[in-house]
Amino acid sequence: MDKVVCVPIGIVRSPFKTVEGTPIQPVGAKGVRGQIELREEFSAGLKDLEGFSHLILIYYFHLSKSFDLEVKPFLDDERRGVFATRAPKRPNSIGISVVKLVGIKGSLLIIEDVDIVDGTPLLDIKPYVPQFDSRKTKKIGWLSGKVRDADRSRADDRFR
Amino acid sequence: MDKVVCVPIGIVRSPFKTVEGTPIQPVGAKGVRGQIELREEFSAGLKDLEGFSHLILIYYFHLSKSFDLEVKPFLDDERRGVFATRAPKRPNSIGISVVKLVGIKGSLLIIEDVDIVDGTPLLDIKPYVPQFDSRKTKKIGWLSGKVRDADRSRADDRFR
Repeated sequence: MDKVVCVPIGIVRSPFKTVEGTPIQPVGAKGVRGQIELREEFSAGLKDLEGFSHLILIYYFHLSKSFDLEVKPFLDDERRGVFATRAPKRPNSIGISVVKLVGIKGSLLIIEDVDIVDGTPLLDIKPYVPQFDSRKTKKIGWLSGKVRDADRSRADDRFR
Repeated sequence: MDKVVCVPIGIVRSPFKTVEGTPIQPVGAKGVRGQIELREEFSAGLKDLEGFSHLILIYYFHLSKSFDLEVKPFLDDERRGVFATRAPKRPNSIGISVVKLVGIKGSLLIIEDVDIVDGTPLLDIKPYVPQFDSRKTKKIGWLSGKVRDADRSRADDRFR
C-alpha cells in the first residue's frame, strides 16, 4: 500500500485559535470546552455514543508542515526521536486525544478537556474503553519526571 | 481540508494471517509476539523509544473495504453506531492498539500483545504515557458487562 487517503469526518472547535498557547495534552486542558462539528452525512454513526463518558479523537495536525526525525519536545531540552515524542511534526501528522463527552445534539458533540487547535480536521471518533486502552507501564523513558509539567505547558511555534 | 494523504511508515508482522481468528483487542492477544518493519528511512525517529514499555500503534485496516454507519460489533448482537464501536469498517479505517515494546534492532521493533493482522500498514508510533492516555471513565455504554468477553473473542469476516 503506497498511500492511505482519509477524508475528514468533521472539524474540532476549541478556544485555541493558534498553536501558540494551546495545551500540549488534555491534562493541561481540564474543563476546557470544545465542539465537534461532524459532517451531517456521518451523524447516524453517533448512535449509542452518548453512553460513553470519554472519547478517543483521531485528528490531523493540519498546521504542521513537513517533519523531522529528531525533535526537541515541549517537555524537554534535548532532541528526541520523533516516535518517542508526541510532537505534531511527524511523518504522518496524526494526533490522538482522550476527551470527555458532555453531550450530543444532532451532528454536534460537546466535549471537554480539549487540547486541540480550533479548526483541526477530525479523522475518527472511538469510544474510550479502559479495558482496551489503559495499561500499567513499567517505564516512560525520557518523560519520567517530566509528565507533571504537561498540565501547565503550552505549545509554542516550534512545530509549525 | 478535503483529504489527508498518509504514507505508511512500515508494516506490522504478526501470526494472524487472516482477519478471521485475529483477537479483537490486545487483551485477547496477551503474549502474542509480532514485529514492526519500519521503513529504514524513518529509523532515526526511533531514538529514545526503547525507554518506553508500551507503544500506541496507529495503523490502517487495509482489508476493510467501504464502511457502514451502523454495525453489529463482535461483542454484541445489536446494531450500534460505528463511532460507538471499534469496528474496522469506519469512514476512515484507522485502528489503534497499545502494545508492549520488547526491543528494537535497527529498524525492526519486537512487540507483544499484538492484535493486528499480518501485513497491516503502520501510520504512526507514539510512546504510551498513562498520564496522557489513561482515564477513569464513568460509563462505557453498551460495552458495559461485555468487555470481559474481549479476551476470548476473535474476529470473523463481517468487516471485510
